[in-house]
Amino acid sequence: MKIYRANLVFTPSCDAFCMLPRGYVVVNDAGVIEGVYEQLPAQWSAVPVEDFGDKLLIPAFNDLHIHAPQYRNLGLALDLELLPWLNTYTFPEEAKFCDLQYAKRIYRRFVHELWMQGTMRSAVFATAHTEATLLLADLFIEAGLGAYIGLVGMNRNSPDNLRNTTDQLIQGIRDLKTHLDRHGKQGLVQPIVTPRFVPSCTPDMLAALGKIAHELNLPVQSHLSENKNEVAWVKQLEPDSTCYGDVYDRHGLFGQQPTLMAHCCYSEGEELELIKRNHITVVHCPMSNSNLASGIAPIRHFMNDGVHVALGTDVSGGHNMSMLRAMQYAIQVSKVHYGNSQGKIPFLTSCEVFYLATKAGGAFFGKVGSFEPGYEFDALLIDDTYLNYDHYTLQQRIERYIYLGDDRDIRRRFCRGQELCEPKM
Amino acid sequence: MKIYRANLVFTPSCDAFCMLPRGYVVVNDAGVIEGVYEQLPAQWSAVPVEDFGDKLLIPAFNDLHIHAPQYRNLGLALDLELLPWLNTYTFPEEAKFCDLQYAKRIYRRFVHELWMQGTMRSAVFATAHTEATLLLADLFIEAGLGAYIGLVGMNRNSPDNLRNTTDQLIQGIRDLKTHLDRHGKQGLVQPIVTPRFVPSCTPDMLAALGKIAHELNLPVQSHLSENKNEVAWVKQLEPDSTCYGDVYDRHGLFGQQPTLMAHCCYSEGEELELIKRNHITVVHCPMSNSNLASGIAPIRHFMNDGVHVALGTDVSGGHNMSMLRAMQYAIQVSKVHYGNSQGKIPFLTSCEVFYLATKAGGAFFGKVGSFEPGYEFDALLIDDTYLNYDHYTLQQRIERYIYLGDDRDIRRRFCRGQELCEPKM
Repeated sequence: MKIYRANLVFTPSCDAFCMLPRGYVVVNDAGVIEGVYEQLPAQWSAVPVEDFGDKLLIPAFNDLHIHAPQYRNLGLALDLELLPWLNTYTFPEEAKFCDLQYAKRIYRRFVHELWMQGTMRSAVFATAHTEATLLLADLFIEAGLGAYIGLVGMNRNSPDNLRNTTDQLIQGIRDLKTHLDRHGKQGLVQPIVTPRFVPSCTPDMLAALGKIAHELNLPVQSHLSENKNEVAWVKQLEPDSTCYGDVYDRHGLFGQQPTLMAHCCYSEGEELELIKRNHITVVHCPMSNSNLASGIAPIRHFMNDGVHVALGTDVSGGHNMSMLRAMQYAIQVSKVHYGNSQGKIPFLTSCEVFYLATKAGGAFFGKVGSFEPGYEFDALLIDDTYLNYDHYTLQQRIERYIYLGDDRDIRRRFCRGQELCEPKM
Repeated sequence: MKIYRANLVFTPSCDAFCMLPRGYVVVNDAGVIEGVYEQLPAQWSAVPVEDFGDKLLIPAFNDLHIHAPQYRNLGLALDLELLPWLNTYTFPEEAKFCDLQYAKRIYRRFVHELWMQGTMRSAVFATAHTEATLLLADLFIEAGLGAYIGLVGMNRNSPDNLRNTTDQLIQGIRDLKTHLDRHGKQGLVQPIVTPRFVPSCTPDMLAALGKIAHELNLPVQSHLSENKNEVAWVKQLEPDSTCYGDVYDRHGLFGQQPTLMAHCCYSEGEELELIKRNHITVVHCPMSNSNLASGIAPIRHFMNDGVHVALGTDVSGGHNMSMLRAMQYAIQVSKVHYGNSQGKIPFLTSCEVFYLATKAGGAFFGKVGSFEPGYEFDALLIDDTYLNYDHYTLQQRIERYIYLGDDRDIRRRFCRGQELCEPKM
């Protein structure tokens, strides 16, 4: 049993911050929260309290869409839209991951930076290379970070050195599953079925992926309706489907298992109905959508409509690994819809984006992303002394941290109750 | 005479980075650049070279629109549009600057952060309080940073505790000028005539400001066409004027002296003609325009049209003092125009925004913001080792620095040839 004392801030719902000034959080030996308290109950009085003073203790961040092999391209090559960007910059970089030495060097840095930025859980696209993907999974395990790791399926409209056959892909997914099962069914790192996107995968490959997801009971992640030209291309490639999402759906890759769909900038009408009906989690990636001039997903509309939304950086379409930046962008792009609607569509608040980056994303990993009883203790200890030089309220402190904070403010990081030390780089 | 060696990167024009790998910059005793060289000319061979190794040496940043008294509000109160935001959050904060102790405490932090972020020159709005504005000017001088400091004129539609009369304002401007003249006519800190914006200033006050600007030969700064409701309000307040800019123009505050106009999100038609004809510098503040849902200035159109454009953070409408962030936002919001025009309006490039943040803004201060001969040596030494772990080209390194860098990468700061140590906080 562990007890920590600090200013606790979390979001049980997206409506308001729950704040316990100098509160207590009790974490059991399984890393699960027993409760949070303003006054410590007598039953715990024998347990020593680790007091973090006036610092903030918040749920750790969850990045629900990120490409590990694009790490080297961070901050580069943002002068093209999605499809030429993929062909010119991204595919050539990903192709390098056939080289395990290269993969190790870049993936170590990637995992280190997730740790640094306080992202304790992530849904990760690797590449089409099985061995490098196993290596990436091992690096996550070594670091103690949680992740869904996806071996990426690509067998059409892709460079030769980045394709896998359906057989290779399915075998790779089995290998990854076997590899990770050695760490237990409840391990922090798990496989996820990952067709890159419809233009990269033949119907045969999609069908095989749907089958293996069902057979091995694996979740699914992919891209959906990110860019207008991409949507038009999918319509051309798969004329029998009623919408982009329907292509995934008819192959069992759209909610038959828990499913993440990144972007959804242009999901409407039937596709939006399908998203709702099949309980898809939409992963909003506003930083990337801005950089690649993709468009702005109608997130307020989705949320009002009951769609489950989470947040992603989409590195390296997004240029920064910090989920704080993703939160800032989520607010700011929502203000474009606000402005275009003459204020009729409310923009996202700091509380709502905090919820998206913690509890909403965490839900994909189980009971993660909040400080409620039964939740796994994923947390960041934040020292905002330099921001808190005047008489700021606790709510103002968290708002200022969202807008002004960065990795150097994070003093300690916990994932499923374990404190994580700095990974090797 | 000083000679520095490093990877020199600067932008003589907005079209391309000029890069001298391991080049030399020769700075004379007046702090002015004699030249930059790939090989050091023989005439300087007796002067010791300070070698910065593989680091980057770039022109320092110039923030052409920033509100010093809003520093405490950074990252707060971004849930309203401009006019209610001013009344609810900003004016009450500015009113506190009648208290010199409070002013000193906040202004010290403000000046410290400009130094920290590598902003060596800025065009600053203070408040309507003369004494606090003199204090702010002294803090800039003490720090060695360059600035135009504006005592803010406000005598209508403003809280009582934040108004000055026209007489008080004009006397305050004279006092500020006298105060700063003691440091010489060529001092790094100079006064600037600063009507807050048309809604805050009666025609009498504007007329008096136009007169004093002419009499004392002072530049002018204000806000223009930031928000649709503001534009409509100005039309209502000043029905005889043909456009918002025309109100300033008929009082001698629109290019009769060198003039900065922040925002210009809605400047078109006659106003745009007036901007061009009168050689107004438009200060683009994309971070603030995003936060306050003001709109997006058509900067590509302005640049194509020959308008002189510079860049500002507009703290605290902008939530971050870093000009790197201002550059990122300038690119990103330009991609909204790019997207809306189906790619017909090209977005801004990293080279163009670097130019805006250095040479284009620096022009308001003289020969500032480039490493060309005759330019004052304002420079930042950047250690990007952690970003430069692979075989990145010099151009890639500067691009990555723009997107991923922050204040901790700045190792040394120079303003007019003098190295600046950390100001007291």
